Amino acid sequence: MELWYTEEWTKDVRFSIKIKKHLYSEKSAFQQVDILESDEFGRFLTLDGLMMANEKDEFIYHDSIVHPAMCVNPDIKNVLVIGAGDGGTIRELTRYWGIKHIDMVEIDEQVVRSCQQFLPLTAAKLADPRVDLHFKDGVTWVEKTKTGHYDLVIVDSTDPIGPGEGLFTVNFYENCFRILSADGILINQHESPYFERDVQAMKKAHQKIRKIFPIAKVYQAHIPTYPSGHWLFGFASKTLDPIQDANFAAWKQLGLETKYYNTDLHVGAFMLPTYVKELLNDAIK
Amino acid sequence: MELWYTEEWTKDVRFSIKIKKHLYSEKSAFQQVDILESDEFGRFLTLDGLMMANEKDEFIYHDSIVHPAMCVNPDIKNVLVIGAGDGGTIRELTRYWGIKHIDMVEIDEQVVRSCQQFLPLTAAKLADPRVDLHFKDGVTWVEKTKTGHYDLVIVDSTDPIGPGEGLFTVNFYENCFRILSADGILINQHESPYFERDVQAMKKAHQKIRKIFPIAKVYQAHIPTYPSGHWLFGFASKTLDPIQDANFAAWKQLGLETKYYNTDLHVGAFMLPTYVKELLNDAIK
Repeated sequence: MELWYTEEWTKDVRFSIKIKKHLYSEKSAFQQVDILESDEFGRFLTLDGLMMANEKDEFIYHDSIVHPAMCVNPDIKNVLVIGAGDGGTIRELTRYWGIKHIDMVEIDEQVVRSCQQFLPLTAAKLADPRVDLHFKDGVTWVEKTKTGHYDLVIVDSTDPIGPGEGLFTVNFYENCFRILSADGILINQHESPYFERDVQAMKKAHQKIRKIFPIAKVYQAHIPTYPSGHWLFGFASKTLDPIQDANFAAWKQLGLETKYYNTDLHVGAFMLPTYVKELLNDAIK
Repeated sequence: MELWYTEEWTKDVRFSIKIKKHLYSEKSAFQQVDILESDEFGRFLTLDGLMMANEKDEFIYHDSIVHPAMCVNPDIKNVLVIGAGDGGTIRELTRYWGIKHIDMVEIDEQVVRSCQQFLPLTAAKLADPRVDLHFKDGVTWVEKTKTGHYDLVIVDSTDPIGPGEGLFTVNFYENCFRILSADGILINQHESPYFERDVQAMKKAHQKIRKIFPIAKVYQAHIPTYPSGHWLFGFASKTLDPIQDANFAAWKQLGLETKYYNTDLHVGAFMLPTYVKELLNDAIK
């Protein structure tokens, strides 16, 4: 018998992975949670049948969502992470000893518990004493947070369908702006420029963030297991430019070894293809 | 009835496209040639069951294989293109009025004729008067070419299995070096850093080119329909560095509109992820 996991990237495009074992499968209060095991990608987490993280290339996503912001402001001390149930974002953040406190607000405890059991590669640092886990709604969390409280907000969410929907609204981004300190940075997973559904999500996110943040840039990464392999992240801030203000010397001095990120790539990632720049410009017309 | 095209990216990973029509299918003297039609990607060419070019994203590959070299040396006049049967590389080259002559050496006439019939988007410029089409073996062609004859050689080949195999050998690259002028540039499709088979092909190409060319760099592009979506190109030359010697002002003055390439991306494309740099360095140890 052969077991194949198949993801519909569009109704006409499928990405399939041969599976050795279906390790975990539960319907939580919010979504379908599965953990599967494969030869090519090792173990991987899916939510509602969409790839979230796998052992082969999770480092690309997690390097991309954490290190650029930390290089722009190595003095970040107080961090809010929304989503990120697999723990990989927290793992990268905890490598910075300058970070004093991380609130991780994940709506679905079942995602965290299943990853702690089956995906220690990403989940192992959730027990770091600087991390407070809150199984709550990120939208409500940012509403209730006091002004200027965080130096960095990372929105490590699913797509804007289902539990992640509220994390793509004007109200949510306005609260992110409000709760950030003067040099605060907002990073969000910013969808993709290639398949139409992702393009629409990308445009909507950019349109909203651009209206609220004086600086709102987009950078890219090669993530082969996300639809099209071309994935984007948003860098928004009140004052700091991701390139002009990057502190490459300070970041290098930290001596962190990273498999994907480096300070050259930091610059290169913000150099977008013409068609992607045009799509983003269309969004703000 | 549903018709699906499925490509094995590895034995455990499949990429599938829903098909409207199977337009063309012939076994040539060299390989299986098919042209299919889909909603998502328009028409596309496959050789031996592997995606070569499709109407949705061929511009990414063809921008990447042509424009960086032309930006580094806008004075290129005499060009050799090996492979490139779909015609897309020729289409981009013919946009430069400074180019006086292009020899296109494609081993398989049937690829060219089928693309002329079914893929005019890429094949339409093959009739440009500056283009000479030769249905011959590229390996023999470079052996018989006189020293210093070309300013640019582009190897737009299939993988190093089947008809493309000879285009990944030391002997072939040595001839490329020999037939290039003093400021000559060699560009080759350089496989991918992600799936093991492609990694091996990438390392072997880089190892050989590095031994022959004083300057041998690698740059990347997001090509969603190639395995992993993370594809590489090689830039090798006798004297010109792809960044230091790039003539961005001259290139911009040409006024070419490009959907993927731009002069910022030119720089960014050479900024490789750490794991890719390590794989390339491993290859030359």
